[in-house]
Amino acid sequence: MSVRIGVIGTGAIGKEHMKRVEQRLSGAKITAVTDVNPAAAEEALHELGIKANFYPNDQALIDAEEVDAIFVTSIGPAHEATVRKAIEAGKYVFCEKPLSVTAKGCKTIMQDEMEYGKRIVQVGFMRQFDKGYEQLKQAIDSKVIGEPLMIKCAHRAPEVDAAYTTDMAITDTLIHEINILHWLLADNYVSVQVLYPRKNKHALPHLRDPQVILLETESGVLIQAEVSVNIKYGYDIQCEIVGEEGIVSLPETESLKIRHNGKQSTDVLQDWKVRFQDAYDKEIQVFINQVAKQEALQGPSAWEGYVAAVTSDACLKAQESGQREPIELESMPAFYSTERKVQLL
Amino acid sequence: MSVRIGVIGTGAIGKEHMKRVEQRLSGAKITAVTDVNPAAAEEALHELGIKANFYPNDQALIDAEEVDAIFVTSIGPAHEATVRKAIEAGKYVFCEKPLSVTAKGCKTIMQDEMEYGKRIVQVGFMRQFDKGYEQLKQAIDSKVIGEPLMIKCAHRAPEVDAAYTTDMAITDTLIHEINILHWLLADNYVSVQVLYPRKNKHALPHLRDPQVILLETESGVLIQAEVSVNIKYGYDIQCEIVGEEGIVSLPETESLKIRHNGKQSTDVLQDWKVRFQDAYDKEIQVFINQVAKQEALQGPSAWEGYVAAVTSDACLKAQESGQREPIELESMPAFYSTERKVQLL
Amino acid sequence: MSVRIGVIGTGAIGKEHMKRVEQRLSGAKITAVTDVNPAAAEEALHELGIKANFYPNDQALIDAEEVDAIFVTSIGPAHEATVRKAIEAGKYVFCEKPLSVTAKGCKTIMQDEMEYGKRIVQVGFMRQFDKGYEQLKQAIDSKVIGEPLMIKCAHRAPEVDAAYTTDMAITDTLIHEINILHWLLADNYVSVQVLYPRKNKHALPHLRDPQVILLETESGVLIQAEVSVNIKYGYDIQCEIVGEEGIVSLPETESLKIRHNGKQSTDVLQDWKVRFQDAYDKEIQVFINQVAKQEALQGPSAWEGYVAAVTSDACLKAQESGQREPIELESMPAFYSTERKVQLL
Amino acid sequence: MSVRIGVIGTGAIGKEHMKRVEQRLSGAKITAVTDVNPAAAEEALHELGIKANFYPNDQALIDAEEVDAIFVTSIGPAHEATVRKAIEAGKYVFCEKPLSVTAKGCKTIMQDEMEYGKRIVQVGFMRQFDKGYEQLKQAIDSKVIGEPLMIKCAHRAPEVDAAYTTDMAITDTLIHEINILHWLLADNYVSVQVLYPRKNKHALPHLRDPQVILLETESGVLIQAEVSVNIKYGYDIQCEIVGEEGIVSLPETESLKIRHNGKQSTDVLQDWKVRFQDAYDKEIQVFINQVAKQEALQGPSAWEGYVAAVTSDACLKAQESGQREPIELESMPAFYSTERKVQLL
Repeated sequence: MSVRIGVIGTGAIGKEHMKRVEQRLSGAKITAVTDVNPAAAEEALHELGIKANFYPNDQALIDAEEVDAIFVTSIGPAHEATVRKAIEAGKYVFCEKPLSVTAKGCKTIMQDEMEYGKRIVQVGFMRQFDKGYEQLKQAIDSKVIGEPLMIKCAHRAPEVDAAYTTDMAITDTLIHEINILHWLLADNYVSVQVLYPRKNKHALPHLRDPQVILLETESGVLIQAEVSVNIKYGYDIQCEIVGEEGIVSLPETESLKIRHNGKQSTDVLQDWKVRFQDAYDKEIQVFINQVAKQEALQGPSAWEGYVAAVTSDACLKAQESGQREPIELESMPAFYSTERKVQLL
Repeated sequence: MSVRIGVIGTGAIGKEHMKRVEQRLSGAKITAVTDVNPAAAEEALHELGIKANFYPNDQALIDAEEVDAIFVTSIGPAHEATVRKAIEAGKYVFCEKPLSVTAKGCKTIMQDEMEYGKRIVQVGFMRQFDKGYEQLKQAIDSKVIGEPLMIKCAHRAPEVDAAYTTDMAITDTLIHEINILHWLLADNYVSVQVLYPRKNKHALPHLRDPQVILLETESGVLIQAEVSVNIKYGYDIQCEIVGEEGIVSLPETESLKIRHNGKQSTDVLQDWKVRFQDAYDKEIQVFINQVAKQEALQGPSAWEGYVAAVTSDACLKAQESGQREPIELESMPAFYSTERKVQLL
Repeated sequence: MSVRIGVIGTGAIGKEHMKRVEQRLSGAKITAVTDVNPAAAEEALHELGIKANFYPNDQALIDAEEVDAIFVTSIGPAHEATVRKAIEAGKYVFCEKPLSVTAKGCKTIMQDEMEYGKRIVQVGFMRQFDKGYEQLKQAIDSKVIGEPLMIKCAHRAPEVDAAYTTDMAITDTLIHEINILHWLLADNYVSVQVLYPRKNKHALPHLRDPQVILLETESGVLIQAEVSVNIKYGYDIQCEIVGEEGIVSLPETESLKIRHNGKQSTDVLQDWKVRFQDAYDKEIQVFINQVAKQEALQGPSAWEGYVAAVTSDACLKAQESGQREPIELESMPAFYSTERKVQLL
Repeated sequence: MSVRIGVIGTGAIGKEHMKRVEQRLSGAKITAVTDVNPAAAEEALHELGIKANFYPNDQALIDAEEVDAIFVTSIGPAHEATVRKAIEAGKYVFCEKPLSVTAKGCKTIMQDEMEYGKRIVQVGFMRQFDKGYEQLKQAIDSKVIGEPLMIKCAHRAPEVDAAYTTDMAITDTLIHEINILHWLLADNYVSVQVLYPRKNKHALPHLRDPQVILLETESGVLIQAEVSVNIKYGYDIQCEIVGEEGIVSLPETESLKIRHNGKQSTDVLQDWKVRFQDAYDKEIQVFINQVAKQEALQGPSAWEGYVAAVTSDACLKAQESGQREPIELESMPAFYSTERKVQLL
């Protein structure tokens, strides 16, 4: 039996997920959609050739008998309320980041989920399903380089539009590093400092770009994260773990090697969707498979949504203050302690 | 509506394809199986948790109403007869290599398919769906390095068992290069010569290993293909195109970079199934998608099966003679002239 | 006519320079030596098969008619006085780092040299003669990546002995980055902050290791420099310049590529003398050539010795304070404004 | 005491060697020159700022008291006679390739040298002094990849002028591979076959380009050597040894890594003089050092000159015949059996 999915929010990322469910993944189909803009929802269905019913709002879609699981791909501020309704209805929910725009909202969701008694919320931190990061995790856990002491990473994009503001370097860009490094290290953050290097001439006047974010963890690991969003040459994700006896780095993406015109070269990707396409596919396939078996989910949890929210808030404060700001998390409930096992599908 | 697939032959490769249809791919399900060993077929279904009906033989399975398309994953000598029955029944058929163990058999299949009037046979040359080879094809076609003049390739495996004989270096190993290079160049082979370098001490007494196969094409491209099947260090597929103004090479497979113990290293794969897993997935997904739309297939055709058979025969003759042997193909029927467009799913 | 060189200090680095002058370089010979330990000096001459006269002290050697130029390779605290005597005698002097152990001492030497009226002091910052750094300099100056915004570098050694203390991470190790980055950027430092990540278990109790030093320049370039001196895997110097439109990185050192035992690998060097052997050769050859022509020297100047001393002092203060410390340089005298042209010999 | 060198032939390569002796190397000076064009010799001395005496012919220069050793850098056909005169005079001689234009001439020289009783002839096969090839030799001898079974190499140049003819692919280009592979393997050639792939459109009408030369050795190693001299993209020397358990390859030349404009790239050299500059320096420095000690030379010997001549003749025959041609060497005299030890200076 296919898992029947209802999609709340049929914008860009919503359509991407609908497309992968219908065209590339196994064991699910889109049966219901809703959107604040009904015409956009109809057009999305038409464009993708999907037959699914339109519902007037999230509650109606969640309540529909033909819906086994929910995709929350609406705008960020709407996520919290929808996720809570899904939990109340006892339906599995995959929620794009952020789980909530406030740490408090994330806590409320955790409370709801714990009361429900089974993990049925997965947050859209897709990098945990990227083959390269999975290999990094395995390498760290194997202790081949000893304990990790430092992480140096970079999140680079060729350009951003005028709507991209300084805080979005944290909430839209670094948020992925916040989650993935926390997952890689299994170690909580304790402080953050933000530095602003010389400004890139390609950045608009209102934007601080690049930025360097220094995070420290409980065990003392120092993270140096670069965010550069006007660097022209490509979309480039770098991550290097410096351990006690060696270094391990994220793979370069696969590319032809060309020798031509005095250069030996490989291509650098330009588009984040291409960079993480396989990871997006896998996060959704894992969600579908676990829903089909009615298992407690093991993908990125509400707790990870909470950690991201708290850390993100501290980063924003550090952007403003120029000082080292503390990051204070509550204790992780035992309910969220199960670690996902890295495995190939 | 899901494409309903009947599987003829539930051995290793059959089970792999069943698993990918049920667990990773979109738009199809396994509804029928048969095998000369019924117990093995039942066990395969059980192991994979698939509910499908068992049929006593290929004809019964092909005739079943619940079967839209056929996977031929039986032993090589059985392929030809089964494929012909599928064509006669007007059912799409995906046939693992070889299409037939003789060039004559391939021609008969082509004749049948042309009489049927639509391309409904796809041969299991999965490398055409490997992202690296797709990029190579695009690079060659773009003329970025001018016309190709030489190809240097290697097909290396860590070891083979005692059943692997000298001729299998052609029929089981080089066969993939024969197909993919023909596809890359869109140029027919005209001659072949086989050289035997110094023997690897790890090769069993009955086996010539390594081997070097020199192929020439109509336009004069010289291919130097190495087959080494006891090289211990890993499963390694190399392909370098030397053009008039540059070189383009197959990507290395993605791997972590580690600096440890005096070395900077990446991993070399050990297993061919891992190397081409994505390509296998894609070849089957493309087949499913085209069947769902009842299109004429664009994947590797019966004609390509015929080219592989003729070339393989000449290579075997060259293994024996030590001389340059001609490769003589009939003219390609216009029916098979449509070239597959490389594209992402 | 060969340049006749007198060596003051025949310890490890002194002997290395004597050996390269006699065995590998052109246009000079060692004619005089002195050392606080006369027996050691004799043994050095014997070991290297060099016929040269022993002098009782630096002044006597400097005054000798048979000496055209001086190598100062004694212990650091002795450098300043010897260099001043050489300038007074009007003899060219190559002085290993540090030029003086105090910024004040460096200023005094600059004063002496300006009074003498020609640049005759070269400081042993050999990295400026490393082919990789020369290429980095050319790439930065070419603006191919736009203006530099950040530098990420690492100075890693497999291990240090018990005499290595936390401050030596600055004065012995980072000192090379202090000089070379200043040369690469042609931009003065304005502040420094030192961070201590989680400690490496291989570091002795008295040592903070690794360390991260954050330097900012007048134009706002942010430098993130790692010093790791117990990292086991090798001696590894990394330097990456992040610019407005791209990244340029120091070359990896040349090494065979091996595919063996499941790995594709290259070697990481273990020994700093091997890493910079060509650079040491070139710095001395350039010195010899300029002395032979009686030119004003263009290699690393007393001013660069002064910049290193001031910066080093601020780094030590930042190690102690944990705060961002200012770096305040005097204005560079016009006398020192000539920039060395990068060129092959 | 400096070794006093007389140069016979002050053309391009002669001047290069004069320059390196005077400006970069240790322990020698140019004291005498001769050339069929006296004005050119004078101009060379003037251009390089060298004071040396001009002699009317090779015999006069060889006989001069002020000459300890001879550089033979005249045109190829003149080498044999000059080298014989030098041996007769008992003077060390460094002779550019070819030692003689005939195998017979090489044998005569060997005869002379053996009668003289000490190895005093070194042939200009500089690749044996290239750091990369030295590392390859060490790797092969260490058996890390087991016994070598195949070598795949390429000698590529961006373009050649109209004077370059098909046979020069052997005598001027492949000659370096002939020597270096023989040295690497310490294994004699037994046969050769030449193949002509599709012609490069950039090659002039009279030239076969590219060419593939297949050489076999006594132990059965198969060498596949590509010569491409109009390949535009750069000067590129590749060498890969396929062994029983792994692969070892020549290092890529050191280059900055740049990420820019959608590409990650390194530079490919354009000029052979840059590629092998260090090797040229080292071959001459080793010659100088051995002459200074009056040792029997260990660099490339007259025997290696003979092997190159015989092999080259067979390759030329194979170019014409299109057949596999035998390569028949006489037995190596014990006089030439000492192998050079690879070592850093």
